Amino acid sequence: MTQPHSMPPRGVYAAVLTPFDDGLEPNLKAYVAHCRWLLASGCDGLAPLGTTGEANSLSLAQRLGLIEAGAEAGLPMERCIIGTGSAALADAVALTKAAVKAGSAGALLLPPFYYKNPSEDGLFAFFSEVIQRVGDGKLRCYLYHFPQMSAVPITPALIARLKAAYGAIIAGVKDSSGDWSYTANLLKEIPGFGVYSGTEEFLLANLRAGGAGCISASTNITAPLAQAVYRAWQQEDADALQESLTAARLVLQAFPLQGGLKELMARRTGDRQWLNIIPPNRPLSPAQRDDLFARLAGLPGMQAVLRAA
Amino acid sequence: MTQPHSMPPRGVYAAVLTPFDDGLEPNLKAYVAHCRWLLASGCDGLAPLGTTGEANSLSLAQRLGLIEAGAEAGLPMERCIIGTGSAALADAVALTKAAVKAGSAGALLLPPFYYKNPSEDGLFAFFSEVIQRVGDGKLRCYLYHFPQMSAVPITPALIARLKAAYGAIIAGVKDSSGDWSYTANLLKEIPGFGVYSGTEEFLLANLRAGGAGCISASTNITAPLAQAVYRAWQQEDADALQESLTAARLVLQAFPLQGGLKELMARRTGDRQWLNIIPPNRPLSPAQRDDLFARLAGLPGMQAVLRAA
Repeated sequence: MTQPHSMPPRGVYAAVLTPFDDGLEPNLKAYVAHCRWLLASGCDGLAPLGTTGEANSLSLAQRLGLIEAGAEAGLPMERCIIGTGSAALADAVALTKAAVKAGSAGALLLPPFYYKNPSEDGLFAFFSEVIQRVGDGKLRCYLYHFPQMSAVPITPALIARLKAAYGAIIAGVKDSSGDWSYTANLLKEIPGFGVYSGTEEFLLANLRAGGAGCISASTNITAPLAQAVYRAWQQEDADALQESLTAARLVLQAFPLQGGLKELMARRTGDRQWLNIIPPNRPLSPAQRDDLFARLAGLPGMQAVLRAA
Repeated sequence: MTQPHSMPPRGVYAAVLTPFDDGLEPNLKAYVAHCRWLLASGCDGLAPLGTTGEANSLSLAQRLGLIEAGAEAGLPMERCIIGTGSAALADAVALTKAAVKAGSAGALLLPPFYYKNPSEDGLFAFFSEVIQRVGDGKLRCYLYHFPQMSAVPITPALIARLKAAYGAIIAGVKDSSGDWSYTANLLKEIPGFGVYSGTEEFLLANLRAGGAGCISASTNITAPLAQAVYRAWQQEDADALQESLTAARLVLQAFPLQGGLKELMARRTGDRQWLNIIPPNRPLSPAQRDDLFARLAGLPGMQAVLRAA
C-alpha cells in the first residue's frame, strides 16, 4: 500500500531538527547525517528549516548553507519541502529561489510574521511578490498555518484567492494549528489540495479525509510508528497503530519540542553537541529530560523505537 | 530649557520611515534627506530601522546598508538609536555591531519574536548572547517592549536581571505598549533609566515621571508640536501643548501608521515613490488618504505644520 514518491509528495515528513556546533553555527555534516537517518527510519520525506529546525533563529546565509548542503549531499530533493518563509520579503524570495534551484518538492512559506493583524490584501501582496520574483513555474508553495507561533493566520479566503491567481503553484498547506476542523474544511473546499497535518496525531484522520500526510516535529523520533500508520491507513489495524503513535506524540508535546527532541538525538548519537540550541529556545532541565525519557520508555510502542535509535 | 545633546540621549525621537524605490529597495538618498528634514523639524534624535521603518521587512544587507548610509552621510550618530533586533541571533549580533561601529547612541533591541511564550531564561540568554558577541563596552541597549507587535513582552523581571548582569549597557526601554503603568513602574523601580514612550501621547507624562522622551512613528510629522512640549515641559503651558500634540497623534493612529505617514511624506516631497511600502503593510486607499488629510487639517495645531511640510 506504500504510495510511490511522485508529485505531489505524500506521506510522513519530519520537520528536521538543525544540529549546531558550540558556536551555534549549523553543523552541516551532522545535519546531512540526521536527514539520512530520518529517511532510513520511516520518513517518506523531509521538511528542513521549519519551526523545529529553528529556521527563524538563523541568518539568511545560515539557511542558504543548509539548503545547499542538503542538495550537494544528494538528499532526495523531490521529497524535501523546505521552509523558506521570512518576515523580510527579500529573504523569503532568496530562500524560495534556492529551494527551487535545489530541485525541492516545495517551499513551506510562513506569512510575514512581524506585523500583526495584516490585511488579507497585504498577505496576498506578500505571497504574490514572492511568487512573481521567484518567477519559476516549478515552484510549489505550501502555506504554513501556525497561528500559535506566527500570530498571523492563513485564512481559507486568502488560500482561495492565491489558488485562483497562481493555480498549481499554490500546492498545499501545513496545518499546525491543532484545529482539525481547519484541515477538514480545506480538504472539503479544495479536493486534492496537498494538506499536511502539523502533528502526527491527525495523520490517520488526514489521510482518510484525502490529505497528503503529516509534517511534524516529533516524527524526528516517531517516524517508524508514523510510517506504520501511513502504510496501513486503509487497513483494519490502522486505528490501533494511530493510537500508539498519538500516545508518543502526546508525551513529546508535553515538553518543549525542540529541547526534548534534541535530548533524544544527543542520546541516540552520543554527541552532546546535539543539545546546542539557539535562544530563546532552551535545553531541557535534567529533571525534564529524565521525565521525558521515562515517560517515553513507558509506552509499549516506543520501546522498540528507542532501542533502535 | 532645551536639553544639551549629551549621553544619555533625551528628547523627541522619530521612528524614521524608510523610503523605497519602485523595486522596494531602500532609497538611501531619500532616507538621508528625510533624516535631515526630521532633525530640522524638531526632532532631537532619530530611531531608524524600527517598526515604522519596516526593518523586519528588510534583509540584513538592506538594514546594514541603511546604517552605513546614515553614518557616511554624517548624520549625528550620537543622537541615533538604531533598531537592531531580529528573530535571528546572528542578524541581531551583526546589526548591533554595526550600530556600535557607526557610533550610534544605542541599539533598540526587540526580543526574538518568532517563538511565542519563550521562557525568561531564554530571553535572558538571547540578549546575553548579543551583548557578549558584540563585546563592546560602548554598547547601549534599549529594550523594545511592543507586545502588540512582537507578541513577546519584556517583563520588568527580565529587565532587572539584565541590568544586574550588564549595568550601564542596559540603558533603557522603548515602551510601545500604550500601557502607561508599565512606563511609570519602570521609572519608579530604576531611577534614571532611559525610558522612552512609544507614543508622543505620553511625552509630557513621561518627562514628568523622569523619563527620557519619546520615540514615535507619528513624530515623523508631529515633531514641531512634540518639540514644543519638550521645550516647555516644566512650564505652565505644557498641558495645553500636550493636548494639541495628542490630538494629532490620535488622528494619525486611527489609520495604518506606516501607510498614513508615507502618504504625508509623498505630499510633502511631491515624490510618489514615498508611497512604496513592503507587504504586508499597504498604502492607504484614496478614501483613507483623503480622510486622514481632512482630519489633520481640521486640527488647529497641525495647520502650521502641514503648511511648513
